[in-house]
Amino acid sequence: MRMYDIIEKKKLGMVLSEDEIKYFVNGYTEGKIPDYQVSALLMAIYFKGMNEKETSVLTLAMAKSGEMLDLSDIDGIKVDKHSTGGVGDKTTLVIAPMVAALGIPVAKMSGRGLGHTGGTIDKLEAFDGFSTKVEKDTFVNNVNKIKIAIAGQTANLAPADKKLYALRDVTATVDNISLIASSIMSKKIASGANAIVLDVKTGSGAFMKKEEDAFELAKEMVNIGTGLDRDVAAIISDMDQPLGRAVGNSLEVIEAIETLRGNGPKDLLELCLTLGSFMVKAAGKTKTAEEGRKLLEQTISSGTAIEKLKELVRAQGGNEEFVDNTDLFKKASITEPIKADRSGYVSHIEANEIGVASMILGGGRETKESIIDLSVGIVIEKKVGDKVSEGDILAYIHGNDQQKIKLAKEKALTAYEFSDGKPKETKFIKGIITKDGIITS
Amino acid sequence: MRMYDIIEKKKLGMVLSEDEIKYFVNGYTEGKIPDYQVSALLMAIYFKGMNEKETSVLTLAMAKSGEMLDLSDIDGIKVDKHSTGGVGDKTTLVIAPMVAALGIPVAKMSGRGLGHTGGTIDKLEAFDGFSTKVEKDTFVNNVNKIKIAIAGQTANLAPADKKLYALRDVTATVDNISLIASSIMSKKIASGANAIVLDVKTGSGAFMKKEEDAFELAKEMVNIGTGLDRDVAAIISDMDQPLGRAVGNSLEVIEAIETLRGNGPKDLLELCLTLGSFMVKAAGKTKTAEEGRKLLEQTISSGTAIEKLKELVRAQGGNEEFVDNTDLFKKASITEPIKADRSGYVSHIEANEIGVASMILGGGRETKESIIDLSVGIVIEKKVGDKVSEGDILAYIHGNDQQKIKLAKEKALTAYEFSDGKPKETKFIKGIITKDGIITS
Repeated sequence: MRMYDIIEKKKLGMVLSEDEIKYFVNGYTEGKIPDYQVSALLMAIYFKGMNEKETSVLTLAMAKSGEMLDLSDIDGIKVDKHSTGGVGDKTTLVIAPMVAALGIPVAKMSGRGLGHTGGTIDKLEAFDGFSTKVEKDTFVNNVNKIKIAIAGQTANLAPADKKLYALRDVTATVDNISLIASSIMSKKIASGANAIVLDVKTGSGAFMKKEEDAFELAKEMVNIGTGLDRDVAAIISDMDQPLGRAVGNSLEVIEAIETLRGNGPKDLLELCLTLGSFMVKAAGKTKTAEEGRKLLEQTISSGTAIEKLKELVRAQGGNEEFVDNTDLFKKASITEPIKADRSGYVSHIEANEIGVASMILGGGRETKESIIDLSVGIVIEKKVGDKVSEGDILAYIHGNDQQKIKLAKEKALTAYEFSDGKPKETKFIKGIITKDGIITS
Repeated sequence: MRMYDIIEKKKLGMVLSEDEIKYFVNGYTEGKIPDYQVSALLMAIYFKGMNEKETSVLTLAMAKSGEMLDLSDIDGIKVDKHSTGGVGDKTTLVIAPMVAALGIPVAKMSGRGLGHTGGTIDKLEAFDGFSTKVEKDTFVNNVNKIKIAIAGQTANLAPADKKLYALRDVTATVDNISLIASSIMSKKIASGANAIVLDVKTGSGAFMKKEEDAFELAKEMVNIGTGLDRDVAAIISDMDQPLGRAVGNSLEVIEAIETLRGNGPKDLLELCLTLGSFMVKAAGKTKTAEEGRKLLEQTISSGTAIEKLKELVRAQGGNEEFVDNTDLFKKASITEPIKADRSGYVSHIEANEIGVASMILGGGRETKESIIDLSVGIVIEKKVGDKVSEGDILAYIHGNDQQKIKLAKEKALTAYEFSDGKPKETKFIKGIITKDGIITS
């Protein structure tokens, strides 16, 4: 078999065989096939696409390129959750304790992430002493005992995907649905869960700007998972403005705690309940997602969810007092308001601009080596649909450096758009896709 | 400027600016832009194409990436000739002396070539003592004095093209008209000629299998040259069977000598006269190609062409006696006939198979490091349209190794196809393209 022929075949729009896909994935991972042949193939895939079978084979080949986590020592159906990423996305911090509080095992591998804020792993480190480097045995024991553990991704999780993604990132071959779907799903498959609930964002602040693309990606991922015997559901949710109010690491953890106490922003709660309800159903705890949602609501009202978060923090060496007293989180030294320069209604908040503002403050990573300042970020006071008068406070900047704050403030202000009339309300949950088809909410 | 953005732009089907093309060509040549980004761009170009302007800019950027030969010390209009390559193509060996015999300067840079036989440079080395490593001064002096010099290409001729072609060759991005045309023309532009006559082959033994593709490539090259102020004509000729009768290095030199003596195969002579006539016209020697053709015919009948070949051989250190006595060329030790296994008409000779047979015998290079056996090859006795009876000799294999001869014989025999009736005659010269348009012959 020759890589040349595989490129040529895809270039001509032909379907690659299972052997051909495995050959290139394994050859590339092992360093036997050079970058320049793979990038040519990726560009050919961009133009000619891959069918369901090819995408599924690619996913499994990438998943199998490294360690395949075996979670069979954990009792029950293991349900994982994945988000395609957005600004202010702290859902895992809310959902994981809620679901675990219902006795469903949550064995979560999370990444650090590159971007506007850190990933779940970074955010959890805002709890003093919290360790995300958990040995396999401890991880399994914790989940069996308290139903929850959140650890950093093993370095050897789907290395083929890691290598391919890095190449796509510099060769303008990221934006292909099959490649995106297989990249996400390969890590989920390798992570060992039996069921996966996907949070697919759409809107100007999402990777998938267009709703139809988000639906397509969601369908593709559900198909891949279903083909590989995983129970998969995908929720398409709005990312036309940041999720919730807090953007930044500690700030988001605090918001997650507030949400678990019943005081969270409406959109964040709604998304967590929707995603969570499908996790509860997938775990076999309830027959329908609706019933699952009711159980989840009870974990908040009864306080079992917030207790579960404390248990998690304690089990992984963190200071659980932070949960009860959020003033213990490291705070930024300066808080500055951003004020409206006109009256009207907030018609749009460009989530990416808010994200960039957070990055400027030091809350995100520009490169893998960047060190994150967990204390900084933005807290939004006025969201889309809110009426404002000139001079009203739109958001607060939390920072530690006057120069950075100035830049971040300018950036954040440009994120805001206003209209004279009240903007039309849009659906927050755009749709739900399961193997049985599309359920429009 | 970022290479990423250039890839993305072409991927979206947009036109690249002059600056962008220069940026990527120069960056790649200097090793600042990695292979994997260039191969992604090349694949995007394969799918989205380049317009005339882009192709012309790419050509010039590649030409300028290395040494631009300055032939201004040579008197008169310098006319170059290029062939897209075929099996049994020894036209340069015939045309160069004929044209030079008319007093037109032939300052020719040739390659060694990778493939079925060596290039012109390899073939000339069949003359004992002939040197193709000629210093610039000697080269210029020889052309001024005897109107002819043939030297090996300088290593630094269009290095960008060399690097890009090597990359295209392993990433399945060779077959794009703009890339092919700019690759050929960049070397011709860098070689310093004022006028260029192109021999574009078409048919099963050619790079351009389809006649329409050959016309397209020819048009593209004429456009590029015209845009860069070169006088360019392209002749589209048949490569549905090997050109002439000899395939192999010494064997082809001998056939070229025979042709210059007036005893050459009809197709070879026809092609040389056609290509040559446009060279004579481009040099300003005659007003029309038809008049040029007559002058060329006279170089054969009067013997001035064969004398010019002798002068060339002598001037470059070779033994000119070889021209008068072709028995002096190193001969293969074994000659074996290939016999027809049925009666009928020869309907097709798959040129590539004959070429591969020559390669098996040791007549061509598989890799840059291969050493060519100049003595081996195939001499075709029956060509398309010839009537044969079972047992008739179709061709002779000239080889030095029984095992290789056996393999080559099998290969050569499979090249032959037969029909019961006389096959329809096809045009040998398919068309001629100049800046004024298509002239169908």
